[in-house]
Amino acid sequence: MKVTVLKDILDANHQVAAQNRALFERHRLLVLNLMSSPGAGKTALLERTLRDLRGRLRIGVIEGDIQTTLDARRVERAGAAWVHQINTRGACHLDAGMIAPALAGAPLGRLDVLVIENVGNLVCPAEFVVGEDHKVVLSAVTEGEDKPAKYPLMFRESSLLLVNKIDLLPHLDVKLAAIHRAARRVHPGLRILDVSCRTGQGLPAFYAWLESQLERRRKGTGRGRKRTRA
Amino acid sequence: MKVTVLKDILDANHQVAAQNRALFERHRLLVLNLMSSPGAGKTALLERTLRDLRGRLRIGVIEGDIQTTLDARRVERAGAAWVHQINTRGACHLDAGMIAPALAGAPLGRLDVLVIENVGNLVCPAEFVVGEDHKVVLSAVTEGEDKPAKYPLMFRESSLLLVNKIDLLPHLDVKLAAIHRAARRVHPGLRILDVSCRTGQGLPAFYAWLESQLERRRKGTGRGRKRTRA
Repeated sequence: MKVTVLKDILDANHQVAAQNRALFERHRLLVLNLMSSPGAGKTALLERTLRDLRGRLRIGVIEGDIQTTLDARRVERAGAAWVHQINTRGACHLDAGMIAPALAGAPLGRLDVLVIENVGNLVCPAEFVVGEDHKVVLSAVTEGEDKPAKYPLMFRESSLLLVNKIDLLPHLDVKLAAIHRAARRVHPGLRILDVSCRTGQGLPAFYAWLESQLERRRKGTGRGRKRTRA
Repeated sequence: MKVTVLKDILDANHQVAAQNRALFERHRLLVLNLMSSPGAGKTALLERTLRDLRGRLRIGVIEGDIQTTLDARRVERAGAAWVHQINTRGACHLDAGMIAPALAGAPLGRLDVLVIENVGNLVCPAEFVVGEDHKVVLSAVTEGEDKPAKYPLMFRESSLLLVNKIDLLPHLDVKLAAIHRAARRVHPGLRILDVSCRTGQGLPAFYAWLESQLERRRKGTGRGRKRTRA
């Protein structure tokens, strides 16, 4: 019974995700589903990106949190073109059905990129598509070298891994190469960028990636293999 | 239907947790359910504790991971009296039904303490009792100041908060007092200890807590309010 219900839930989620996606495509919007452990730096990445790309890209944000509107206020202050907070009230991830009502009032036509910041959780969010072009996973060097091995689905489902907090490397017993190796072992073609959202190191490469994906999206070539699965 | 199934699952979990607990009580065993985000330092805490308390306490460990046996090997090398690995194969938490079969072959009579290291996840594990005396949550200062506000259930359900990685504080824009304040806001009576599993700072206070809880358990006064809820 448990299994049947789970299958029903995933099937229903895929249907709603397809509807969300159709809406995103109509507006030629690039949509990222941003995921990580709690405190890996998702909101810090958004703040820095919003400030650095102000005037270049119009970025909207859907903030997913179990509770509080702390993150929504942070990205609003950083200059997001549109912000919507979802409080999941206990649920450990966002699903397509939580995103759909948020889109009803959204000025999608006036955005270039929509970032959906998921609940901080390296497990459950990977199982649910919400209509995104790409899942992006952020992993902080402070979390150690073995996260891709221990949470493989998250790294397998993502198009891009941002290894964050590299400014702290001199103070840790952690090697970047070991994180890369572990990530490529579970997802050989994974794109990896090393960044520090605090110092800004490595972020221009992320912005270039963002703009190239937006370019592909506008030319209608942005649909990768992953996206057809929903 | 979703709600009914969830209620059934939680009720069934409580029944099995009560059976686990009865077994633990027969052996006057102190049982901790150790939880945190991925990479906050649960296994590092166990390694250090096992080494520091060798000859003083006989500690057994159940390791919960989605995949790999990396952690089981680490605590085995550090001197655990008994180690059992559970691979949840995708599940985001341990429940009582996963613990029960592990106990069948366990030398419970030859242990003082059993630590159940949960899957790295600040959300889902808090919802499931497994028969423990205490939930213990570990939160690294690298995760920022707002985790208790954003993941309140985890901090509310725990008897003890270990704030880990305090050796990194000089390199962060994070204040210990702010973490304590946020934690006490969601759980006013929460016991908090600041530690570094890397330098050992603060750990003697954790060991003293462990021994006082074991003492209470042996005198049969170890059952707090939390435990009667399962």
